[in-house]
Amino acid sequence: MRTFYYKNKPSIIGVSSVGGPKESAGELGEYIEIKSNDDTFGEKTFEKAEKKMLYTVIDNSIKNANKGIDDIDAIIAGDLLDQIISATFSARSFDAGYLGVYNACATFTEALTIGAALVDGGYLKNVVCGTSSHFSSAERQYRYPLELGCTRPPQAQWTVTGAGACVIGQGEGAKISCATVGRVVDFGVVDVNNMGAAMAPAAADTLYTHFKETGKTPDYYDVIISGDLGILGSRILTDLVWQKGYDISKNYLDCGAMVYKNAKKEYQGGSGAGCSSMVFCAYFYKMLREKKLKRILLMSTGALLSSLSSQQGESIPGIAHAVCIEI
Amino acid sequence: MRTFYYKNKPSIIGVSSVGGPKESAGELGEYIEIKSNDDTFGEKTFEKAEKKMLYTVIDNSIKNANKGIDDIDAIIAGDLLDQIISATFSARSFDAGYLGVYNACATFTEALTIGAALVDGGYLKNVVCGTSSHFSSAERQYRYPLELGCTRPPQAQWTVTGAGACVIGQGEGAKISCATVGRVVDFGVVDVNNMGAAMAPAAADTLYTHFKETGKTPDYYDVIISGDLGILGSRILTDLVWQKGYDISKNYLDCGAMVYKNAKKEYQGGSGAGCSSMVFCAYFYKMLREKKLKRILLMSTGALLSSLSSQQGESIPGIAHAVCIEI
Repeated sequence: MRTFYYKNKPSIIGVSSVGGPKESAGELGEYIEIKSNDDTFGEKTFEKAEKKMLYTVIDNSIKNANKGIDDIDAIIAGDLLDQIISATFSARSFDAGYLGVYNACATFTEALTIGAALVDGGYLKNVVCGTSSHFSSAERQYRYPLELGCTRPPQAQWTVTGAGACVIGQGEGAKISCATVGRVVDFGVVDVNNMGAAMAPAAADTLYTHFKETGKTPDYYDVIISGDLGILGSRILTDLVWQKGYDISKNYLDCGAMVYKNAKKEYQGGSGAGCSSMVFCAYFYKMLREKKLKRILLMSTGALLSSLSSQQGESIPGIAHAVCIEI
Repeated sequence: MRTFYYKNKPSIIGVSSVGGPKESAGELGEYIEIKSNDDTFGEKTFEKAEKKMLYTVIDNSIKNANKGIDDIDAIIAGDLLDQIISATFSARSFDAGYLGVYNACATFTEALTIGAALVDGGYLKNVVCGTSSHFSSAERQYRYPLELGCTRPPQAQWTVTGAGACVIGQGEGAKISCATVGRVVDFGVVDVNNMGAAMAPAAADTLYTHFKETGKTPDYYDVIISGDLGILGSRILTDLVWQKGYDISKNYLDCGAMVYKNAKKEYQGGSGAGCSSMVFCAYFYKMLREKKLKRILLMSTGALLSSLSSQQGESIPGIAHAVCIEI
């Protein structure tokens, strides 16, 4: 069984989100807590800018939860950079435990899954879960030097410059009630510009497993949310779960497909480890707190490649972890 | 509080270890389950060789626990390669959940800390925790191309070519009774060849926190084991905890300092995410099962750098997580 329940339903007691210029001008810009019109955030490199974003949302989420760093037992964080340096160097600034996690763009719900268990089981009192990504740091690490100005194919997505973090503890807030741990699923996609197609089979596997193991159907949720499949990947997911007998066409959204306004250069929409964390912490958490949504299934989705794995001829497997959050 | 107890004391019910030629010929060679005299393990690249090692120990640990893959709910794994591809591509071969973790060479006890909580709390039934490293894949990623034949300074360590994995579940075996989550500690070391010095302050912080929060003293343990501080780093750790009022000089060992015989080229000894997992699964687990040791504190230690963080002028912070294992 890959699905389990949190008996004490730990709460998300504080959130924070930050977005870059493009994200702040996007569909959900008004909901983002810290909107920046400078994608360097005053730093000398894009990597340092990403670290600053993640540091900021961790720090703010603790304040927004009315807690101090003394109340936080651990930070559970990850990002897309080699050796998850954004998470590590953010955590360095806090006097709290640190557990680094990495499942590419599925890292946010991976962190929530682990963090909620550590709080629910009484092991730790309050934990912060956070992830980040930055278009420019990801682009030059995974694909091409920015200076090359490479054109992008229509199936490409745009890595979100943003971060989101939330504090899990006991108290008022949206509750995390159950989780389904994803498995690595590989359909043999090798196009590093088509992440949606690479991740959709893993998302379908997690959704199908979640429904099968819980006995629930899609209409149990006000909305089912994937992380960053993008417009094309979302369609593939809808088709794949339809083939398994589940219709999610009426209550399904994708953070990546939602994040940009009138996407042109972004083609299929946003992606990145900061995509689902920023969108959840900015928008969906607010919808839950205002009771416009009462029960959601949040499923961040990740493409598990590295530059080296692609160079050595590997295909791109995907993964997705789902958490049920309700108010 | 960063220390917590596992009420149901989950067991390590099966282990497996693999070592390369140098490790198999080392001090602990006789204890390693799979000894290879070929550091490519029949693969075309060192990265694929590392993946094969990790895959093999995950697979064998499940068999050694008398379990099948259907009994395993999740694999919790990580390694030193960018985007932890050894872990990801190993997990791809198993029909089980996957949680990728990364705390450099501290990843093994990070995985144990999380895995034991997930089993102890009743969230998952059996999980596999595993980590790997490979001298040649690490060297060319973090330092220099192998073909350059760079000389190494005397404070350097040698990345272990090896892997270890264990199954955590309920049943007969050594029990995991408590854990202390480490925090990121940075003393400003910038020498990428002196990992022991970079990690020792974090190890001292975790040990000190463990003693303070549990009220225990070093003599509570038959042996306190660090991951890969090496000979020099071990001395620094002993001094640092001495300054805090704890004497570990009588019952302290370091996996990195133990692993090679008559170290010459290896200078301060072994390092790498596979160092503590291989040594624990090969040697210490056997000592526990044979009751030659009854209670140990295993503390893997990690240096949280990336090539890029060093290039951008960052120092090297460390981290260490400690787990108490007893029989």
